[in-house]
Amino acid sequence: MKINPLKGMKDYLPAEQKLRDYVQGCILDTYRASGFERISTPILEDMENLDKSEGGDNLNLIFKVLKRGDKLASALASGDEKALCDMGLRYDLTLPLSRYYAANRDKLPTPFKVIQTDRVFRAERPQKGRMREFVQCDIDILGDASCNAEIELIDVTARALLRIGFSDFTVRINDRRLLRGMLSSMGFADEALDSVCITFDKMDKIGVDGVQKELEEKEMPAGAIQALVEFLNQGEFSLDKVASLCQDAALGENLRKVIQSITTLSGGAYQIAYSPSLVRGQGYYTGIVFEITCAGFSGAVAGGGRYDNMIGKFLGQQVPAVGFSIGFERICGILAEQNFAIPAEKGKLALLYRSEDNFTQVLEKAAQLRQSYTVTVLPQAKKLGKQLGNLEQQGFGTVAFADNDELKPLGERQ
Amino acid sequence: MKINPLKGMKDYLPAEQKLRDYVQGCILDTYRASGFERISTPILEDMENLDKSEGGDNLNLIFKVLKRGDKLASALASGDEKALCDMGLRYDLTLPLSRYYAANRDKLPTPFKVIQTDRVFRAERPQKGRMREFVQCDIDILGDASCNAEIELIDVTARALLRIGFSDFTVRINDRRLLRGMLSSMGFADEALDSVCITFDKMDKIGVDGVQKELEEKEMPAGAIQALVEFLNQGEFSLDKVASLCQDAALGENLRKVIQSITTLSGGAYQIAYSPSLVRGQGYYTGIVFEITCAGFSGAVAGGGRYDNMIGKFLGQQVPAVGFSIGFERICGILAEQNFAIPAEKGKLALLYRSEDNFTQVLEKAAQLRQSYTVTVLPQAKKLGKQLGNLEQQGFGTVAFADNDELKPLGERQ
Repeated sequence: MKINPLKGMKDYLPAEQKLRDYVQGCILDTYRASGFERISTPILEDMENLDKSEGGDNLNLIFKVLKRGDKLASALASGDEKALCDMGLRYDLTLPLSRYYAANRDKLPTPFKVIQTDRVFRAERPQKGRMREFVQCDIDILGDASCNAEIELIDVTARALLRIGFSDFTVRINDRRLLRGMLSSMGFADEALDSVCITFDKMDKIGVDGVQKELEEKEMPAGAIQALVEFLNQGEFSLDKVASLCQDAALGENLRKVIQSITTLSGGAYQIAYSPSLVRGQGYYTGIVFEITCAGFSGAVAGGGRYDNMIGKFLGQQVPAVGFSIGFERICGILAEQNFAIPAEKGKLALLYRSEDNFTQVLEKAAQLRQSYTVTVLPQAKKLGKQLGNLEQQGFGTVAFADNDELKPLGERQ
Repeated sequence: MKINPLKGMKDYLPAEQKLRDYVQGCILDTYRASGFERISTPILEDMENLDKSEGGDNLNLIFKVLKRGDKLASALASGDEKALCDMGLRYDLTLPLSRYYAANRDKLPTPFKVIQTDRVFRAERPQKGRMREFVQCDIDILGDASCNAEIELIDVTARALLRIGFSDFTVRINDRRLLRGMLSSMGFADEALDSVCITFDKMDKIGVDGVQKELEEKEMPAGAIQALVEFLNQGEFSLDKVASLCQDAALGENLRKVIQSITTLSGGAYQIAYSPSLVRGQGYYTGIVFEITCAGFSGAVAGGGRYDNMIGKFLGQQVPAVGFSIGFERICGILAEQNFAIPAEKGKLALLYRSEDNFTQVLEKAAQLRQSYTVTVLPQAKKLGKQLGNLEQQGFGTVAFADNDELKPLGERQ
């Protein structure tokens, strides 16, 4: 028998799981206090639904489940590889949510403020910080077309991070339509905008020269490239400037309102930045997009945006939607790197008994001690000194014995 | 796009998920207070490990995951159906735990008191109360060969059920070795004992006559059948009687100690019964087995037993183990049928705002109200009366408005 978990998947030790449960608890408590309600959907989704979703590269990373019984036999006989599987493991929580909302809409309030925290799966080449099975924590507001939905999602997600113990983070925000409007006004063709955005999003890494070079390689119009480069060379560019180039005053006004509201609500506890090149990968975003970055750590710890067209694919009727997803594994990884200590809870006490003790009375004594401690009942080892040392290493602060009333603190022994 | 979840799997509405989270919270709180620690393993396991496990019928119910890339291509070329898949969805939490313990033993305490609560998958023909994806809540004690492990597992599982709000339940307990010893002494052959036990376990349903008939159909020795029937016709049979037939005084003594301890620990809050025909399905149980039944509901709400040989298959060294699994879906189903009300928590308040209100101030007001309520921020509808009615139906007890300080109770309107 093989004893290791599968490639890209992980066994969590008790201390790791405790941190994960703590982080998830902070997130859930914060979201629930704001009236968001948790739902749950199956890990498996219909294969056709997955194939038709706009998941970008993720569609190549789906774990597919083999058909069973007669259906498998006829699929094998057909020789058609695509016919072998009828379901797949979900690669995110947004597609299942859209399906769920379409299926259950008559039982759900409007707007629907929803929490999902659960496992997703991607058959990626395993590498540091990239798992094949991982947890996402999402909140979404469905049915609110106003930018109040964006404001509330950002506010509550930032409060969840503060609650966990994060502080030095920045919310970066943009509206894809502003960026596209500006690029369009510079002379890039509509059908080239996605490609230009992908290059533009790398500006932090490759600089203005790199952007120019890549756009030239992509054979974009020279005049458009020149206009963009001139604009970029003016240095830091403001929302006002981009909005004026974009020639859509309402879009700029809308984003400005979101940024100002969040700035006020933050009370200075975190930063907010207009991030004109921010795009976020998913194809389904339609307007404002945002992410949270953390000083000293590359990449985002949370990301989201508005996706007004996705639920319509299931429902045949558009439903405005905004979502914000916390990168749960990223958060836990950063906390572990920082040797984060979970805030104090009830102390751990080991109640030791010998084989001659009455075990029923041992458990009765444990029940009493549980009013003040988390009590683990353990057989007393022959080498008590060594056992006490081990218990101390395992985080026990106190030891008690079945046959007397002494409570012995650990860690204060000579 | 298809909007319904896959066959045998379920979308959980907010109220259903709330009940599930409440039940899981009660279970986790109870287990953690007793020093059990939660771990987590991947949903996917190696296909060979699954195939070699002693899962009985469950081995025919595994969802298998198709290989990817080059490995899939060569598997397809080979024409070998069994080569198509390299992993599968786990059908229980005991096999993953055994693998986990073997992989991580040097980082785990002895005895290891462990919690798992997570999803498992079985490709069963869907029917009422039987899902293809469902949650199990397991606790296990690894590394304690004494019956104290059984006593503690039963005590803490029963306390978890009491904490949830269950009371009218019975812990049924047996030792497979006692039953087998008794049957052996009556003249059944060792290799026939599994089959005889399966028949005997049905006695509650088919009666003594039914047992006799089925054993005759199975062509068991007439003398052995007659000895068993005579014994059964003596009516209620006691642990003393069975133990004396079994001719192993220590086994009877051991089971008597467990039953007496649990009886004392229960304080009369639930029943304990010696259940001489109890076997439990899994092939891997080696000694004492137990289950919990609930008055008015057929089948068990929890089941478990000792499995001393399973971890050895991974580790090459025997590790004594006992587990108890709460049927989470069963518990939630019974509570839903009883219209169980989750104990009171912070009241739900809806804070209504109009489009002309300053949304930043609305969220600031919500943050203040959150000290006393779970606050959901919602746009005020044009038809306020209808909206208030809907809110009341959704469980909101209070409504507040962005532009004044009134707190309006719902449900007391004229």
